[in-house]
Amino acid sequence: MTYENFNGEELTPASAFAGSKTPIDDVRIEDFEVFDLRFPTSLDASGSDAMNPAGDYSATHVQLKTNTDLKGHGISFTIGRGNDLCTSAARQIAERLVGKTLGELTKNMGETWRFLVADSQLRWELVACIDFRYILDAITPDEAIAILKEQEKTKPARFEDAQKSEAVPAYSTQAGWLGFSDERMIELINSNLSEGIDKFKLKVGGNLEDDIRRVQIARDTIGYDRTMMLDANQVWSVPEAIDYMKKLVQFKPLFIEEPTSPDDILGHAAIRKALSPYGVGVATGEHCQNRVIFKQLLQAGSIDYCQIDACRLGGVNEVLSVLLMAKKFNVPIVPHSGGIGLNEYTQHLALLNYICISGEKSLLEHINSFSEVLKYPVQTKNGFFVTPWEAGYSVEYKPEAIVTYEYPNGSFWQSEQGLAIRNGPKL
Amino acid sequence: MTYENFNGEELTPASAFAGSKTPIDDVRIEDFEVFDLRFPTSLDASGSDAMNPAGDYSATHVQLKTNTDLKGHGISFTIGRGNDLCTSAARQIAERLVGKTLGELTKNMGETWRFLVADSQLRWELVACIDFRYILDAITPDEAIAILKEQEKTKPARFEDAQKSEAVPAYSTQAGWLGFSDERMIELINSNLSEGIDKFKLKVGGNLEDDIRRVQIARDTIGYDRTMMLDANQVWSVPEAIDYMKKLVQFKPLFIEEPTSPDDILGHAAIRKALSPYGVGVATGEHCQNRVIFKQLLQAGSIDYCQIDACRLGGVNEVLSVLLMAKKFNVPIVPHSGGIGLNEYTQHLALLNYICISGEKSLLEHINSFSEVLKYPVQTKNGFFVTPWEAGYSVEYKPEAIVTYEYPNGSFWQSEQGLAIRNGPKL
Repeated sequence: MTYENFNGEELTPASAFAGSKTPIDDVRIEDFEVFDLRFPTSLDASGSDAMNPAGDYSATHVQLKTNTDLKGHGISFTIGRGNDLCTSAARQIAERLVGKTLGELTKNMGETWRFLVADSQLRWELVACIDFRYILDAITPDEAIAILKEQEKTKPARFEDAQKSEAVPAYSTQAGWLGFSDERMIELINSNLSEGIDKFKLKVGGNLEDDIRRVQIARDTIGYDRTMMLDANQVWSVPEAIDYMKKLVQFKPLFIEEPTSPDDILGHAAIRKALSPYGVGVATGEHCQNRVIFKQLLQAGSIDYCQIDACRLGGVNEVLSVLLMAKKFNVPIVPHSGGIGLNEYTQHLALLNYICISGEKSLLEHINSFSEVLKYPVQTKNGFFVTPWEAGYSVEYKPEAIVTYEYPNGSFWQSEQGLAIRNGPKL
Repeated sequence: MTYENFNGEELTPASAFAGSKTPIDDVRIEDFEVFDLRFPTSLDASGSDAMNPAGDYSATHVQLKTNTDLKGHGISFTIGRGNDLCTSAARQIAERLVGKTLGELTKNMGETWRFLVADSQLRWELVACIDFRYILDAITPDEAIAILKEQEKTKPARFEDAQKSEAVPAYSTQAGWLGFSDERMIELINSNLSEGIDKFKLKVGGNLEDDIRRVQIARDTIGYDRTMMLDANQVWSVPEAIDYMKKLVQFKPLFIEEPTSPDDILGHAAIRKALSPYGVGVATGEHCQNRVIFKQLLQAGSIDYCQIDACRLGGVNEVLSVLLMAKKFNVPIVPHSGGIGLNEYTQHLALLNYICISGEKSLLEHINSFSEVLKYPVQTKNGFFVTPWEAGYSVEYKPEAIVTYEYPNGSFWQSEQGLAIRNGPKL
């Protein structure tokens, strides 16, 4: 097997893993650590929306240790107390890796992934989609290969965009949290604009009167010639979503995100049909747990924008199947990316989708809360994400961040402020 | 508020909770314990199916303790390692109950349930359907009330059936585990028949040739005049399910259960359409996490039999909404019940559905593995479940069962046999 980097340079197995001189068959996973990291975003209401008023954006952070100086880093994203469950799950899955070499694991990544998710006693709970066959009625392996081959022809021009950091356009959710004052919202929109980010998403769904005022102010500040999106975080029933959105279509949002239950494939199709005459699209996906749900959203014509989540889908393999189906159904990808460390993942998926699969640029959510805890935080320039060139998936926390934010023993969570959040109301 | 028992006798709040002389406003939940109980069903392959070859049927068992001698008992069902995650989740939810009185909690059970599932930081992971409004496009509260009032008129005759223990017909899965030999299967079918249970379900989906042989033998033993059902535990893709089942329709099963991914609403509809000309129905539901999934299964015409699960749906409130929708869409209920303690729950739901909601008897799965660990195990007589008259939901384990089967410190899991399972392959 050979490896190549984004420049198309062939890498030897030894150099494919940054900094290591050891052949991959000699690098063995010997141990792991799972950290429950929680970042207190509830302090300033960043992250607040109509469903989740006070989340503490969190990471289930896994470090794999080898018999060399190589380490593996990964996260799943939660918004606080749910992190207990995710860290337990991560421990059970990580145990299956101990004793394996990188050579064994990378020989067939599909098989490795299936091995990780197919523990039958655990699967009963994780309900993961473990087989390509579950989507055979939507896309066949041959169709997937044809898509990739077709895109190969025009890949060089898109790769140049990546080299110029013009491949992944950024939009900001920073200004649009429901808990922010109008003044703070205006200030943050203007600050984003001055940094070159000119696409925005706002949370709605708390209260119609407030939303009309907020969205009007936001649209006036943004201008009607730029892109604005809305996000209801699942608060509405199907008929309510339609009625509520009819009051907001005047502000010309590109789409409404999560207008109802993420499980409601037929409901999203009904909402999309009702809003389509107003030129407002429907987006969903951040709570969709596997390719079977995405398959149906695409088959039923439920969505205008497909919002994969790098963590909830349980890994790159599952994401790839959704990217391929979305391409076949001609639905653009707008990844869910609001999490601390999540953006670092999704920039790679957006790049991959643009260069190799869809050929279309994916709008990518950008947030920068607590970016100081990350070793390789995303950067934006002129409204685009700066293409990352380091090996790996860009998710690594600074050691001091772990000391501070590990739950419940990190210094922040032991501080007066941290204890106040821990003992506060569970909204 | 008033309480009444199944005999329609009004109970005072003080006597509504068996054995307690304390008014409910004075009974306060002060503490709880969560037990990880695992019963080694993998030892004899009971519970084995095409997807889950070696499950250890388990219970996340919660005990609520009060300032009186009253205790609350509840479970969720898993098949082994997943129980870690469920016990963590149960602890988080149980914490919300500490300090509440039974008076507060029973004043409005709908509100209590919403309070328990609506922790916004945890909800991010639990993805529960918390609002009646998510199903307003399928059933309105007025329609629900009309159904209940209509059934009220003919309730006394059905209540008499319950008094005679002729309300809930039992079927057996005991003979049909995939890991059993043909001889054992025949022996168990005959043993069930001699006890008066004459309806059977068999696991299929491991290997077509074996299944044709097994199902032929089973059908010959059962006879074509009795009910036989099949269960594939999600192993097939949609086209594969149709092709495979066309080879088994000759044995006249009532339905095929879980022919594909439980998330695939549109896929089940396609399978149902294809099998309907052969007189074979489609059943699913044991992996469906909320009313939104059931709403769509009913709306899309995906199922002939609706398989609620008392544990996965997270409580009676959510189950009620599904029972009401199923009645409106005229789809019979066949609860999922294969679990140790699960049957004790579902007998109540089947009774409730028959007497108050659908007016039709629900076929109910009966298994008796490890029934000796339960304080009030289900009983069958003449092919029906014996109606339970004790107060409560019948889920209580004997103290010695907890000592033996608590994981990982119970005496069984510390024994040589227990350690062998713990250290065995993770299938």
